[in-house]
Amino acid sequence: MSTSPAPPDASALLSRIDAHYLAMPPVAALGVRVAGFDGETFRLAAPLAANVNDKGCAFGGSLASVMTLAGWGMVTLKIEAAGLDADVYVADSSIRYRAPVYSDLEVAAVRDEEAGVDWPGFLAMLRSRGRARIGIRADCTLADGTVATESTARFVAITRPV
Amino acid sequence: MSTSPAPPDASALLSRIDAHYLAMPPVAALGVRVAGFDGETFRLAAPLAANVNDKGCAFGGSLASVMTLAGWGMVTLKIEAAGLDADVYVADSSIRYRAPVYSDLEVAAVRDEEAGVDWPGFLAMLRSRGRARIGIRADCTLADGTVATESTARFVAITRPV
Repeated sequence: MSTSPAPPDASALLSRIDAHYLAMPPVAALGVRVAGFDGETFRLAAPLAANVNDKGCAFGGSLASVMTLAGWGMVTLKIEAAGLDADVYVADSSIRYRAPVYSDLEVAAVRDEEAGVDWPGFLAMLRSRGRARIGIRADCTLADGTVATESTARFVAITRPV
Repeated sequence: MSTSPAPPDASALLSRIDAHYLAMPPVAALGVRVAGFDGETFRLAAPLAANVNDKGCAFGGSLASVMTLAGWGMVTLKIEAAGLDADVYVADSSIRYRAPVYSDLEVAAVRDEEAGVDWPGFLAMLRSRGRARIGIRADCTLADGTVATESTARFVAITRPV
């Protein structure tokens, strides 16, 4: 029998991610906070009050922002856990808004399995070429399990000069 | 010789759009303001300082937010100019981040000609069915004319019960 190993230094990484977020004015305005990381899924939450539109539900731009951040955080955590240092940029994204969100925003990001690159391949490419790309899927899910907003995005990582 | 007619009551509509924006907390945080409307193109601007990421350029989520708002504003202005009243929702969007934005954000939204529905068709459908859909293209352009971020999105309008 085996269990999944805990991600290395998860709490230290999360603190760094949290600090990173709070240094960005648009992220501070979203009221976003790290809600969990199990090594494969990175979760963010944000209050509806800071992100409400004229119709009383979550603003589409806020959903796009939180999903972008969740993907960025997921990629950053994997890079840091591998002992690498890189800037991470979103390259493109597609979002489907399926149902309005009348509650606090709960977003989970995972690797997009349909995008073809896995984490070992991404990290190996980043190590050897200094640049790599990976697909991330991020969804906003309601309390009853309904996926209200779904997105796929590609992120590019570029190692920082030492 | 003819000139393009000025959009009806453009300044009154813009004031309403501005007030509408400022009532939304996530929009107030973006620092967004209406930068122009000529009847076919709706322009928004937002300061880099409120939207900067950890790399000193515009946060992808902020760009997504301003582009979503520009599309929403364009559709809302066309609906109001036609004397209709409807809620406008973003249904889906695709964004390409082509170059980093190190300046204030300047976004212009126009009808997406490739999406197949024109304004008269959209407004006729909204009048007859109470629900209609239109494609909008929104770009963030740099001072030298480079398109830094480009997006297409579809918006759904649903007339409000009287």
